[in-house]
Amino acid sequence: MDHIYSYEHLTRFTNEVFLHMGCSEEHAQLASEVLLSADLRGIDSHGVARLSGYVRLWEAGRINATPNIRIVHETPSTATVDGDGGLGLVVAPFAMKVAIEKATNVGSGWVSVKHSNHFGIAGYHAMMALQNDMIGMAMTNASPLVAPTFATERMLGTNPIAVAIPAKSQPPFVADFATTTAANGKLEILQRKNQEAPTGWVQTKEGDTSTNPNILKDGGALLPLGGDREHGSHKGYCLGAIVDIFSAVLSGANYGPWAPPFVSFLPLPPNPVGEGLGHFFGAMRVDGFRPADEFKEHMDNWINRFRSTKPIEGHQVLIPGDPEREMDAERRVSGIPLLTPVVNDLQGVADKFKINF
Amino acid sequence: MDHIYSYEHLTRFTNEVFLHMGCSEEHAQLASEVLLSADLRGIDSHGVARLSGYVRLWEAGRINATPNIRIVHETPSTATVDGDGGLGLVVAPFAMKVAIEKATNVGSGWVSVKHSNHFGIAGYHAMMALQNDMIGMAMTNASPLVAPTFATERMLGTNPIAVAIPAKSQPPFVADFATTTAANGKLEILQRKNQEAPTGWVQTKEGDTSTNPNILKDGGALLPLGGDREHGSHKGYCLGAIVDIFSAVLSGANYGPWAPPFVSFLPLPPNPVGEGLGHFFGAMRVDGFRPADEFKEHMDNWINRFRSTKPIEGHQVLIPGDPEREMDAERRVSGIPLLTPVVNDLQGVADKFKINF
Repeated sequence: MDHIYSYEHLTRFTNEVFLHMGCSEEHAQLASEVLLSADLRGIDSHGVARLSGYVRLWEAGRINATPNIRIVHETPSTATVDGDGGLGLVVAPFAMKVAIEKATNVGSGWVSVKHSNHFGIAGYHAMMALQNDMIGMAMTNASPLVAPTFATERMLGTNPIAVAIPAKSQPPFVADFATTTAANGKLEILQRKNQEAPTGWVQTKEGDTSTNPNILKDGGALLPLGGDREHGSHKGYCLGAIVDIFSAVLSGANYGPWAPPFVSFLPLPPNPVGEGLGHFFGAMRVDGFRPADEFKEHMDNWINRFRSTKPIEGHQVLIPGDPEREMDAERRVSGIPLLTPVVNDLQGVADKFKINF
Repeated sequence: MDHIYSYEHLTRFTNEVFLHMGCSEEHAQLASEVLLSADLRGIDSHGVARLSGYVRLWEAGRINATPNIRIVHETPSTATVDGDGGLGLVVAPFAMKVAIEKATNVGSGWVSVKHSNHFGIAGYHAMMALQNDMIGMAMTNASPLVAPTFATERMLGTNPIAVAIPAKSQPPFVADFATTTAANGKLEILQRKNQEAPTGWVQTKEGDTSTNPNILKDGGALLPLGGDREHGSHKGYCLGAIVDIFSAVLSGANYGPWAPPFVSFLPLPPNPVGEGLGHFFGAMRVDGFRPADEFKEHMDNWINRFRSTKPIEGHQVLIPGDPEREMDAERRVSGIPLLTPVVNDLQGVADKFKINF
């Protein structure tokens, strides 16, 4: 059963939780906005459902509520940011702002981040660039759950990529996707519904095809986008690897199987190769390539043409970002539905801090 | 049956053909090197097998053998290059050099290109950055053969992405892949062998699943990486769309269904929205993020760790670029095998210019 809460209610509560963790007013507000943007856009797995996870990481001493987030290396168009163990939810916007500032100055800005943790949805950060007539990009590495093509071992995270591109009268193009066939959140939905997964989503610990959505608990793995070699899983593996390297090898974070887990009950991998989790951000001024108005008019034309693509009967061709934007508009008005386990989870957080949910 | 030709023989011949088209010595040599790099790396569909295609485009007046390739818009870290209708094989290295120069100056360089055509393999251009301790990126849009998720209409090309990343003692990481489940060249191989395609590669003109490798001739389409919605084809569609927008909307080239065909017998789409085909290139100095030696040592570690990933029995986990590098080493010594139709095709080109093959 779903319980409906207003965006404002959940924002107030989340904000209070971050304040109780010791975050500054500014950080608590920003972290709440980033976290809730997932619930608004319908990415329920990345929103308040994760709040208790952040709290547990903080309790375990793996999140620093008062980080000194700073640039530790830079050129006019590139930088590395040290997140100082802060919430990814505040480290990421800091780094994206650095990228935007550099783009304002020299046309583009590219920022790799170390010593961070989960940053919410990649799309939020990429979209920060839009208001400046810039293209925004965001990616992050994550806990190892994905087996490369031909592997049985979990070496990569679901490593999402987001790209946001401004248009003129049309809403922006916003792609935001895991580099696996299906994100872990999709598996969790199947687990709750007690349904099988399609082939190509997961494999057993021996590397055999599986439709068991619980197989990750038995040493199985998520599969790279493509599913198997015949269907291009080596391309999904390449994408996940590129995200890992840009996010963590460039910055000095932990990469591949060394990426720290989001859940606090799992130990940190021994012999770390860097600090925390890594992210990568980019911003490019569209007028670094052609006049902004000209670009945005052609983006309108691109979007109109693709939206009117001849569809398969009974279907409709979408522009990346369409479903999430519609969901956002609806949920701001009619509220955000939460599943009972999530409500119980948030109640537990409220009890812990002796606040009301 | 395969016919074996030495790399030097094919390079000499290709060079002579470009000279007979009116290219400068410098351009003919560069174009030959780029084209042959595909044959060396085992991407046979993109090498000398396409030479006659370039010749026919030139005969049709769609390739300018003496282009004035130039920067038409720039900031310190971005630029748009006008290829002036030149061979993509020479326009692309020009643009990549601009990206590298900008990266040398300000940390990174990003170049969008208009008024170009087919540029060979994306990997060649991305790899140009390696010798400067830079990460290189290359992508291009292409003739529309791909139906977006839920579409019956062909709106995107196979739009490849290449990313090359330097290491220290290990060979570089080089990913180079089409954003479709399978590239068109893979279909052509099945056509020649009279074999069926796996499901998820192509669909009929009504959007139904098909295993007919000839289905594109009947209005069918290639499918984005993922194959269908359940297996993440919307992610492949996103990737193809991003490549299209970066390559063509940023630069002012033709995008989506307006991208010009490679084959000269197809008319150019009416009411063009830009000039020619588009590409996009990037270069980032690794020491724009952390000391180069430190980065390259960690890349060695990344590569070693991933190469030793526990494999599925009877398999081996590869590093992107491994198979192509091995093929390159082998073919430089033992020669490049060509299929009889390709040999006949090259003989036809030789006859046309009254030169020896």
